Amino acid sequence: MEHQEKHLKSSDFITDVVIGMSDGLTVPFALAAGLSGAVSSNMIIITAGISEIIAGSIAMGLGGYLAGKTELDHYQSELKREHEEVERIPEQEKKEVKEIFAAYGLSEASQQIIAQELCSDKDKWVHFMMKFELGLEKPDPNRARNSALTIGISYMIGGLIPLSGYFFSASPRQGLMISAVITVVCLMVFGYLKSRVTGQPPVAGALKVTVIGVLAAASAFLIARLIA
Amino acid sequence: MEHQEKHLKSSDFITDVVIGMSDGLTVPFALAAGLSGAVSSNMIIITAGISEIIAGSIAMGLGGYLAGKTELDHYQSELKREHEEVERIPEQEKKEVKEIFAAYGLSEASQQIIAQELCSDKDKWVHFMMKFELGLEKPDPNRARNSALTIGISYMIGGLIPLSGYFFSASPRQGLMISAVITVVCLMVFGYLKSRVTGQPPVAGALKVTVIGVLAAASAFLIARLIA
Repeated sequence: MEHQEKHLKSSDFITDVVIGMSDGLTVPFALAAGLSGAVSSNMIIITAGISEIIAGSIAMGLGGYLAGKTELDHYQSELKREHEEVERIPEQEKKEVKEIFAAYGLSEASQQIIAQELCSDKDKWVHFMMKFELGLEKPDPNRARNSALTIGISYMIGGLIPLSGYFFSASPRQGLMISAVITVVCLMVFGYLKSRVTGQPPVAGALKVTVIGVLAAASAFLIARLIA
Repeated sequence: MEHQEKHLKSSDFITDVVIGMSDGLTVPFALAAGLSGAVSSNMIIITAGISEIIAGSIAMGLGGYLAGKTELDHYQSELKREHEEVERIPEQEKKEVKEIFAAYGLSEASQQIIAQELCSDKDKWVHFMMKFELGLEKPDPNRARNSALTIGISYMIGGLIPLSGYFFSASPRQGLMISAVITVVCLMVFGYLKSRVTGQPPVAGALKVTVIGVLAAASAFLIARLIA
C-alpha cells in the first residue's frame, strides 16, 4: 500500500512535467512560427514568446492549482454530506447501497446481507458511498500545489526550447528553421515519454504530439502571412 | 436514466464552452498586454494574437480530441483484457471481487455469496470489475470529437474578445485599456458561469478566474517592458 502510493506520486510528477512541457513546446513554437511569417525582427518574436510563456504558465499553473483546490473542497463537502445522511436517513442510504448491487443482478437476499454488514461500520460505509455512489476518491491535499508548480515550470522550460532558435539567429526565417528542428525533435521525445507514462503505444504517441505541434505552427505561419 | 444522460451531455457541452472561453480570454489577453508594453504597432499585436489563437485552439482542440480517443482505446483494451481474464482465470478474478469487499470489512461468508452471484453473469461481472477494480466507466464515443470542436471554437471566440480592443484603437496603450475593460468583464461573467456549472460558489469563482487573467496580463506586461 505504502509502496503503491509512492509509485503513483512519482508518476503524477512525470505526468505533470510532460503535460506542461508538451503544451509549452506547442503553443510558443506556433506563435513564434506565426510571427516569423509576419515580422522582420527577432526581438518582437522573443518578446511575444516570453509574454506568452508567462501568461501560459500562470494560466496553466494557477488554473491547475485552483482546480485541485476545488476538487479537494468538493470531496470534503460531499464527505460531510454523506456522514450527515448516514446519521440522518440511514434507511435511505442502505437502500442506495442495495440499488448499486441490484444493478449488477445480485439477489434481494444478497443485497440485504451486504447492506447490513457494510452499514455496521459508519466510516467504511461513508467511504463506500463516496467511491461507488459518487465515484470520488480522496485527493492528495498537496497534489494541487505540487501539480501547479510542476506544470507551470515545465511549461516555461518547454516554451523556451522553441524560442531559443531566435536567440542565436540573425533573422526570423533563420530562427524559424533552427526552432523547427529543435522543437520537432523535442516533441517526438516528449510524445514518446508521454505515451510511455500513460501506457499508450509510444511511437504512435510521439507522432500524434509532433503532428499537433507542426500543424499548429504551420497554420499560424500561413494565416499570419495572410493578415500581415 | 435517459433523462439523466441527456442532462449530463448538455452540461459537458457547457463545461467545454467555459473551459475553452476562459482559457481563450486569459492567454491572448496577457499576450496582447505584454506586447502593448513593448511594441508600438497594433498590427503586430493583432498578428501575434491571431497566431496564438490559432495555435492555442489547435493545441487544445486536437489535444483534447486525441486525449478522448486515447481514453476510449484504453477503456476498450481493458474491457477486452477483463473478458479474457474472466474466461481464463475465473478463480483469480473471483478472488479479486472478494478482496474489494474485504477492504470494506465484509465477512468471508458474505464475500463468497457476492462473488458467487456476480460471477454467474459474465457480462455483469466484467462491468463490475471495470468499475470497481479499475475505476473505469464507458466513455461516450462521440465525446472526444464534440469536445474538441467545442473547446477549440470557444477558445477562438474567447481569444478574439481581448484582441478586439486593438482593432478599434490607434495605439497599443489605448488598445490595452479597451481590451482590459472588455476582458475583465468577460472573465467575471465566465468565472461566474464556470462555477455555476461545476457547482462551486459563483462569486468566489468569478473572482478567481478574473485574478488569474489579470495577474497573467500584468506579469506579461511588466516582463515584456523589461526585456524590450
